[in-house]
Amino acid sequence: MSTQQKTAETAIPVDQTKAAIRTRLADLRSAGASIALVPTMGALHEGHLSLVSVALANADRVVASIFVNPKQFAPGEDLDRYPRTLHADLQRLAEAGAHAAFIPATEQMYPDGFQTSVEVGELAAPLCGRSRPHFFGGVATVVAKLFTQTRPDVAVFGEKDYQQLLIIRRMARDLDLDVEVIGAPIIRHEDGLAMSSRNAYLSAEERARASVLSRAIRQAAEAIEAGAKPAAALEDAKGMLRAAGVADIDYLEARRSDDLAALADGDGVEARVFVAAHVGGARLIDNWPVRARSKS
Amino acid sequence: MSTQQKTAETAIPVDQTKAAIRTRLADLRSAGASIALVPTMGALHEGHLSLVSVALANADRVVASIFVNPKQFAPGEDLDRYPRTLHADLQRLAEAGAHAAFIPATEQMYPDGFQTSVEVGELAAPLCGRSRPHFFGGVATVVAKLFTQTRPDVAVFGEKDYQQLLIIRRMARDLDLDVEVIGAPIIRHEDGLAMSSRNAYLSAEERARASVLSRAIRQAAEAIEAGAKPAAALEDAKGMLRAAGVADIDYLEARRSDDLAALADGDGVEARVFVAAHVGGARLIDNWPVRARSKS
Repeated sequence: MSTQQKTAETAIPVDQTKAAIRTRLADLRSAGASIALVPTMGALHEGHLSLVSVALANADRVVASIFVNPKQFAPGEDLDRYPRTLHADLQRLAEAGAHAAFIPATEQMYPDGFQTSVEVGELAAPLCGRSRPHFFGGVATVVAKLFTQTRPDVAVFGEKDYQQLLIIRRMARDLDLDVEVIGAPIIRHEDGLAMSSRNAYLSAEERARASVLSRAIRQAAEAIEAGAKPAAALEDAKGMLRAAGVADIDYLEARRSDDLAALADGDGVEARVFVAAHVGGARLIDNWPVRARSKS
Repeated sequence: MSTQQKTAETAIPVDQTKAAIRTRLADLRSAGASIALVPTMGALHEGHLSLVSVALANADRVVASIFVNPKQFAPGEDLDRYPRTLHADLQRLAEAGAHAAFIPATEQMYPDGFQTSVEVGELAAPLCGRSRPHFFGGVATVVAKLFTQTRPDVAVFGEKDYQQLLIIRRMARDLDLDVEVIGAPIIRHEDGLAMSSRNAYLSAEERARASVLSRAIRQAAEAIEAGAKPAAALEDAKGMLRAAGVADIDYLEARRSDDLAALADGDGVEARVFVAAHVGGARLIDNWPVRARSKS
């Protein structure tokens, strides 16, 4: 890959080594620019591009990283078939206004003898941490590295991966990485399905079926806001998923937005309804906010 | 504690918060100074002061940290009785030429909600990792934090804690912390006992007995250098310990210096003989180099 892409309007410089991106960012920093990092695994869609917009609103220069991180996939998960669309990704990043891309090879991130991991505790235990026990350790490790490699002022993550967002914010704080971790709202298709690179795995029929996920968690969130007991609202939402042909539900739970503690009846705090379910060959996740309400 | 100590000749500035030490070091750095960090748990002896000397030889300004890290003590270990000699420590650091001390409170390092840990894999498995399974995770976590808090150019650790030195060097490299981790030679008392803050736990009789540790590993190292099979040399050294009344041996092993792999017969690489043993109420460790030799 050349360091400059073909046409002027889509030109975006690409760095493939830690040394190269550090030099680029040191130059920007000494010219007084603040830096935002948008970590991605590529296969970029409008959700990612919205992260770039949020980053542009919070810093002078935006670097997007593209790295399909093997440490966050377990054996048998979809590492090999995870969509890779590098050329289109670079074009989209340029059009969205990103200033540079950092695309390290796996050997750059995990050279021979690599053996360190970063783990987050309580926040990584529930939800996706239960069915994917190595996932958040892999995420925290690679993001810690991206943060120390690029030393950004801010970093932007999507709220679709809400548990990941909380974990990374906690990790950055706990390890004194001095990065402000900003969450960006979920971007949805017209029928409500949250945008995800993994939606590419869905057939047309599965794609239509998948839209029930957001409808179900929205219904549960609105019922809880209106005073329903969380357990009853969640049971209704599960019924809705099953009625629509989504039977393989990994979890459907309501938890507090700040620490992911289980939401109790009459608990008036900010919360979210979280879902993970398999549709065809895709494991999809989504969440919906439950606004703080007066205690019943 | 005031930020300046009493007399001019022993004055050394003390920072107690991450923000304060960062401001101090940013000022030094913008004046062009390179920074060395010497992390300690206090109770300073000549071994620590030699680390300051090595640091002075490798950087313009030397900061020593003093923090008795609760995360590297298991319940029932000696956290509560670990020696604390803060006033004398500051005087010694000033006399040794250190330029500042960083003495954070536990709440500074581990605020409410702290839940992140840094773990190193293979290097942390043998030797002390076996009998103290949480020890190296606690060390790697606190040192990662000290590195991100102070961002030194170099950091100096004693070879007495040789496994720790390798683990920290690996951690810094794996997490891209950009700190050169330097090992400093073991400082010994006249009778060969490696200096350690934990020697303070020894009665006069135990103190005399403890000197057999260094004699035993030195004898084993010299025997292996001379061509003896490691297993036989180590068995002799164990006999020597037992004969001197040191029966509670945690380990006595010969391992490669670079990756701590077990040393095989006729293995001509750089190696070390490692010992951990209990003498009275103290768990003492030591190690002795085995120079590379031609294969038999």
